[in-house]
This record gives sequence, C-alpha cells and structure tokens, in this order.
Amino acid sequence: MSTDCIFCKIANKEIPAHIVYEDDDFIAFLDIHPRAPGHVQVIPKKHYRWVWDLPNTGKGGIGDYFAVAQKIARAQQKAFGTDWILSRIVGDEVPHAHIWVFPNPEVDGDKDDFEENKKKIIAALVQ
Amino acid sequence: MSTDCIFCKIANKEIPAHIVYEDDDFIAFLDIHPRAPGHVQVIPKKHYRWVWDLPNTGKGGIGDYFAVAQKIARAQQKAFGTDWILSRIVGDEVPHAHIWVFPNPEVDGDKDDFEENKKKIIAALVQ
Repeated sequence: MSTDCIFCKIANKEIPAHIVYEDDDFIAFLDIHPRAPGHVQVIPKKHYRWVWDLPNTGKGGIGDYFAVAQKIARAQQKAFGTDWILSRIVGDEVPHAHIWVFPNPEVDGDKDDFEENKKKIIAALVQ
Repeated sequence: MSTDCIFCKIANKEIPAHIVYEDDDFIAFLDIHPRAPGHVQVIPKKHYRWVWDLPNTGKGGIGDYFAVAQKIARAQQKAFGTDWILSRIVGDEVPHAHIWVFPNPEVDGDKDDFEENKKKIIAALVQ
C-alpha cells in the first residue's frame, strides 16, 4: 500500500465512498465525478499502479478483476434499464489501478444522486 | 455467428485484418482507425453482442478475455516503450463484443503504419 494513495485509503475505509460491492480482493464505489448515473470505479484492494500490473492468472488476478467489473455492468444493466454499459481504463488521474464502468449517457436519472444510484446498483447486484 | 457481422468475418478470416494474436477463443487485430500506434481490437471469436454477455467464469469467459487484453497491453508496453496503455469498451459502433487496447497518445510512431506496428506487437508478444 502507498500511504498517500487515495484509492488505498478508500479500500481501507479511511476515506468514505459510496461502496456498491466488496470482496476479498476488489472494491467498487461510485465515481465522485460521474459521466452517467451509477458510474462506478472498480479497484483492487492491493496497490497496483496500472490495471495491467495485476497477475495474469489466479485469485485476485486480471480475470477475477474483470469478472467483478462484469458483475457491476450487469447490475447497471438492470438498475438503469439498458444493455449498453461502457468501460474505460485510463490511469493517469489516480496512480492506483482502476476501471470505470458506467451506463451510456442516454439513461434516465440524476448522476449526482449518489445515494439513489448506490441503492439501485446494490439492489440489482443481489437479484 | 451473425452472417452480416464484420467482426465474425474477421474471426473467420473472410475479411483480412492485421492480426497480432489468436487463440481458441479470441483474436486481436489492429484497429483501422487507430487512436495511437498499435491500437488493437480484442474480440471473442464467438458472436456476443456486448463484452458483458460473455460467460462470467470458465474457458472463453470474461476472465480469459481480459487475460488476452492484458497480454496485448503488456506487449504494447514493450513495443512502444511506455507503461501507460489505455482501454475502452464502448460497443455501439460494431454489434460484436470488442475491447480497444491502445498506447497513450504520447508514444512515438506512425499510427497508420499497420505493418510496422503489427510487427512490433508480435515481436513483443513472443519475448
């Protein structure tokens, strides 16, 4: 862990976030500058600089990472009534691996209503 | 397979492409409208409408898919001398699952020199 890393602090619950999913290796929370309602960041709890730095195989590796991203995407499909879910891996804004997963801009809803969008995604995840 | 699907035709070698990687389940080739040198599309050979439609587990599923995307990204890191490799999943342009994987715009090289960029990526993949 990098002590100055904001995403490490979110993973360690030192900074609050609108968390929608968590398991042993990954955590997913709403982006504070959403492109669309329910825009999620999926991150590994362990500190990696880039998405591509995760192990290629095994528990907590790249396959598990995108299986979590897919769970979020499928929950967003249900929560926002659309099949079209986008994703981006950029990586220069925060130096901790992160995947954006977000509904297309045509979906209904207020992208800044974090409590409501969090509730919708969590409800869809447990369906 | 969808008979009118351009990506199914590329997967079946009915349409030529600058293929840089192929296995049982996936194929990767240079995008014809590159954002950067060595911009690759990674697609499943089987027809799925969206990336999120792939199986969540098992051979040929979402984990294997992104393990291939990671192989491409790591080859691009070597081929273009950068750690910063971006990815996008959009999905409305071609109705067959596809992931863009491409170096950041600051890398050197001619993005339209497909033969050269293909050679560089293949050379880095076999290292």
